[in-house]
Amino acid sequence: MNTRRAQILDAAAVLIGRQGYSATSIDDVIKESRLSGKSHFYHYFRSKEELGFEVLDRQFERFAERGLAILREPMIDPMERLSLFIDSLVAAHAARGCHGGSPFGTLAAEMADAHEGFRLRIAQVFVRWASQIQSLLWEARPQLLDDVDAVRLSRFIIAALEGGLMMSRVKRDIVVMEGIALDLKRFIVMHLREPNAVPHPSAGV
Amino acid sequence: MNTRRAQILDAAAVLIGRQGYSATSIDDVIKESRLSGKSHFYHYFRSKEELGFEVLDRQFERFAERGLAILREPMIDPMERLSLFIDSLVAAHAARGCHGGSPFGTLAAEMADAHEGFRLRIAQVFVRWASQIQSLLWEARPQLLDDVDAVRLSRFIIAALEGGLMMSRVKRDIVVMEGIALDLKRFIVMHLREPNAVPHPSAGV
Repeated sequence: MNTRRAQILDAAAVLIGRQGYSATSIDDVIKESRLSGKSHFYHYFRSKEELGFEVLDRQFERFAERGLAILREPMIDPMERLSLFIDSLVAAHAARGCHGGSPFGTLAAEMADAHEGFRLRIAQVFVRWASQIQSLLWEARPQLLDDVDAVRLSRFIIAALEGGLMMSRVKRDIVVMEGIALDLKRFIVMHLREPNAVPHPSAGV
Repeated sequence: MNTRRAQILDAAAVLIGRQGYSATSIDDVIKESRLSGKSHFYHYFRSKEELGFEVLDRQFERFAERGLAILREPMIDPMERLSLFIDSLVAAHAARGCHGGSPFGTLAAEMADAHEGFRLRIAQVFVRWASQIQSLLWEARPQLLDDVDAVRLSRFIIAALEGGLMMSRVKRDIVVMEGIALDLKRFIVMHLREPNAVPHPSAGV
């Protein structure tokens, strides 16, 4: 990607994360990314909306490359990978001092009723995220009980994580997120044929 | 409460729910609540911030009176009440066509990093909500396993509900929330001494 374009997207992501999409003006983005003016901005993006969509795409791509990559790690047992993924979200949130939360949940809260284009794109983010968990559960199916509903479970995992990030961000306390991650792992273990065959997740948190 | 004041708070709640706190101006509130002008507004509220805090207080009071009331219903078994509470949130979300989501989660996403006063007040909302679930779990303790951590479980319940409301709002599909409610009830049942003594929650959704 063009470096200048990438700089604008990064600057816009910071601004949207800090003050929301609606409150972020093209002038803010121009200032933050040190562009020379509006015509310079419009050289790269047709509109604020196009910029916003690309910021979201870029955030999900990064999350897929970094955050979700552990879900596809071939050398680790799939259920262990799921547990590591949950731990990695907790660790990343702790490293940010419980600021920021999930960019997807935050944008969803702002835009779901306000902008149909964003709503559809954020819905797609959660579908893609859930489908990666579903692939992992499919791979783990010999270990899982027969009646596990992988679509429902994948959504539940994301909902608990998103809710947990939001609540620990509000409380500014990683203990909230750690507790939710622990309970989520206890719930996931319930779906195994031999729940006691894996180390008790409380030992890992 | 003074009727005019209540009208302003209701109008502001609608506007904040639709477009967020930051994007809602005092002029918007004056227009929506048909006040004669700024001095009329300042007769009731010192600032937009004071208005915003009172909107949040009023939303939690209503939620405590209506939504959370079922948790304190003396004639129903406590764990059954918890299940009914979850069902009632799903039903209310369905009745709104999956619009709006949780006013607390939505405001948290917007304000947690932007305004310390709001962050603290929203954190307090979740503490109060969680404490009502903790009271119920305390009442239900003869039915619960000895190692149940009521504080952690109450937070997990709220996180799953908040995440579920957000995700089904984005997908505009109540099936998402129904599935999360079902899994949440399955998780809660795990904490009972005799999980099979209560009807399987899947029958209830």
